[in-house]
Amino acid sequence: MMHVIILSGGSGIRLWPLSNRVRSKQFLKLFRDTKGEPCSGIQRVYRQLREAGVAADISVSTGADQAGMVRSQLGEEVAVITEPERRDTFPAILLASLNLALTRKCGGDDVVAIVPADTYADTEYYRCLSKLERAVCEKTADILLMGVEPTYPSAKYGYMIMEEGAEPRRVSRFIEKPGEKAAAELIAQGAVWNGGIFAFRLEYMLELAERYLPVSSYDEALARYGQLKKTSFDYEVLEHSGSVAAVTYRGPWKDLGTWNTVTEQMDGPSMGNVTLADTCRNTHVLNELSIPVMAMGLKDLVIAASADGILVADKAESSYIKPLVDGIRQRPMQEERAWGEYRVLDMVSFQDGTKSLTKQICIRAGQAISCQRHKMRDEIWMVADGTGELLLDGKLLAVERGSTVKIPAGAWHRLRAETDLHLIEVQIGGELTEEDIERCEQIP
Amino acid sequence: MMHVIILSGGSGIRLWPLSNRVRSKQFLKLFRDTKGEPCSGIQRVYRQLREAGVAADISVSTGADQAGMVRSQLGEEVAVITEPERRDTFPAILLASLNLALTRKCGGDDVVAIVPADTYADTEYYRCLSKLERAVCEKTADILLMGVEPTYPSAKYGYMIMEEGAEPRRVSRFIEKPGEKAAAELIAQGAVWNGGIFAFRLEYMLELAERYLPVSSYDEALARYGQLKKTSFDYEVLEHSGSVAAVTYRGPWKDLGTWNTVTEQMDGPSMGNVTLADTCRNTHVLNELSIPVMAMGLKDLVIAASADGILVADKAESSYIKPLVDGIRQRPMQEERAWGEYRVLDMVSFQDGTKSLTKQICIRAGQAISCQRHKMRDEIWMVADGTGELLLDGKLLAVERGSTVKIPAGAWHRLRAETDLHLIEVQIGGELTEEDIERCEQIP
Repeated sequence: MMHVIILSGGSGIRLWPLSNRVRSKQFLKLFRDTKGEPCSGIQRVYRQLREAGVAADISVSTGADQAGMVRSQLGEEVAVITEPERRDTFPAILLASLNLALTRKCGGDDVVAIVPADTYADTEYYRCLSKLERAVCEKTADILLMGVEPTYPSAKYGYMIMEEGAEPRRVSRFIEKPGEKAAAELIAQGAVWNGGIFAFRLEYMLELAERYLPVSSYDEALARYGQLKKTSFDYEVLEHSGSVAAVTYRGPWKDLGTWNTVTEQMDGPSMGNVTLADTCRNTHVLNELSIPVMAMGLKDLVIAASADGILVADKAESSYIKPLVDGIRQRPMQEERAWGEYRVLDMVSFQDGTKSLTKQICIRAGQAISCQRHKMRDEIWMVADGTGELLLDGKLLAVERGSTVKIPAGAWHRLRAETDLHLIEVQIGGELTEEDIERCEQIP
Repeated sequence: MMHVIILSGGSGIRLWPLSNRVRSKQFLKLFRDTKGEPCSGIQRVYRQLREAGVAADISVSTGADQAGMVRSQLGEEVAVITEPERRDTFPAILLASLNLALTRKCGGDDVVAIVPADTYADTEYYRCLSKLERAVCEKTADILLMGVEPTYPSAKYGYMIMEEGAEPRRVSRFIEKPGEKAAAELIAQGAVWNGGIFAFRLEYMLELAERYLPVSSYDEALARYGQLKKTSFDYEVLEHSGSVAAVTYRGPWKDLGTWNTVTEQMDGPSMGNVTLADTCRNTHVLNELSIPVMAMGLKDLVIAASADGILVADKAESSYIKPLVDGIRQRPMQEERAWGEYRVLDMVSFQDGTKSLTKQICIRAGQAISCQRHKMRDEIWMVADGTGELLLDGKLLAVERGSTVKIPAGAWHRLRAETDLHLIEVQIGGELTEEDIERCEQIP
């Protein structure tokens, strides 16, 4: 039996402003599905795993703040393993393994394959998972990896050197992000890219858990998760293990980590409300805002506009974006949640220190926001479209187009959409943060 | 007696998206006043006229849709002559002259000086107006102009060739926007730029009015204004008049018509929430949005972002913007009015064809919106800050922070701000246009 864990983390900084803290790059709808509809990276990977006929159950490992996004994009049928807080890939993989063993009672012989959510490859890439599974079952090595035949001497990927022989071949050395010249030499020696997929027997990871997080229940694992060191699986396990082997894949493969690689995958030079003058060359514009973007006389640029900000960058420069985005202190301005999505339209501070924040919110038909209350803010809702049912301090109210509701600070409230419900929300208070929210399972 | 008419028209296309149909370039706060506060082109010209000690009353001639903007920026003390509809400079100057003669009973011997609102020059430029006045009084010519000593062979300005002699010198020829080579030859022959200021005796224009728009009252002039041909003063009068003279000015002078000239006047490379990486060269960013703009690795670009849109253009290309903006069909997304200002935050269309538009509105303390009603839309207001008094279908209501008001289609309403009043307005209806408004002087 194989279990596939899609690893969906990431800080979303490199594809700012289309990505943000909760809307990491794998959630951006930059692709087209088989029907031509916009689809995200994680949706594409999920579909490809299904198409590849991988005989495995598929789960997604993600942080608490991205769980809603995963639900929203992949639906309810996929299992979500939620990290109580973000730590890095090694803790996440450990937790996912404990989840399989302790909550789903999977056996130590079961195979676990870890699959990144932000890879762009052919479906063929995921067909190779069955080769990994067979190799794990045959105990070829403790950890099986996917190697990718390099197409150019990239300085941004990890390389591995394998011993000669028939596949799977043992990995003798890892080289993380060499310079271009060193990369060319590595390729000449037959090195391959590390595709980021790991496969192992569940018991292998459970033995590591004995050392790093010995627990007797999954709840205990969740409770003690914060004690684990923030470290990557590559660094903590892979590079120190003497028993690693790999199979190789030859075909299209990319880590969609930078604007350069993302724009290469676009259907045309622009997305959204864009006027691109014919004086532009090798310039891509992605506009998520409703207002138009106009580009004139540009060369080799990427322009991206969203509710979080506007980036105008030379394509070659755009990979150095991280320190600049770190300097921007701002709450995420848009999020997809399991129940729908929201976008911040406006923020104002008044003379007495009170702040006001205006959001556009869409709750999908049949969905509801959790029962919640806020300490620091009043909220006013105006319904622009749809019908729904509001529970406010114990009273049930029907809402419809044109309804206004005031929710004073401290009042418990929950809103359920009967049809798609479009609201404008105005928050008024001294401090307006996403953290000012108290949730409650049982309706008080 | 001299009357100065500041001509404030313009389509606002060339400085899109900071300017729009109602927010022409002269209203953009791209400068600093003497206290270091942001100030617009028209505010600068108005202040310079005062500083130059021009002994004249000052009026502004503008279109009905820009009158509120003029009031908002120059205050109540300046006289505003409102064109019932936009026609071009000749009709505007004719109307302003009729206004002086018929409503203010000015004499035919009075001097009228027409001053563009979008010139960037030293205050010294406006001191020269007294030379023009003297020359008009001495009947040196029918029309007196301001010549500007050229500093480079611009292909974008108008040139004039003057006869030899002492100032004022008679103008023998006009050359509109020659090529750069021709411009250089003209400069070698002693030609000067046409500064766009005209001065004449009021009776000169009244004689023209006899021919173009013979009326017995100003109301009649307003009523018949639409019959006048859309044509410029330069074309209709100046180039055919045999009696034109000019005085010349030597000093800084620019027509702030393009992004190139505007960015040259900026204090630094950016305005607003901007991160400009040090890999940028000769790049200017003007950001009026609250979300950040980030620029990386750019050369010779201008970036401008406002509620109306986002422009990213090579500086040299940016002067060819007009046809591209003509292709963008969109209502103005922000306006300053006599009572305050608004900004469109969001527009959505729903499945049943109903639309929703969300505005942020600020009504300044003591100001009020006109008494009005709408046929096609309901409006919902939420007060985020301030206090005010609402008249709704004959009833007076006090509003304050947290108030919500529903204004159904057809209901007369007027809102007066006691303190600065910040509203979020949600319009809901089948058609949402600025034109769906019926105003009423007397409160019904």
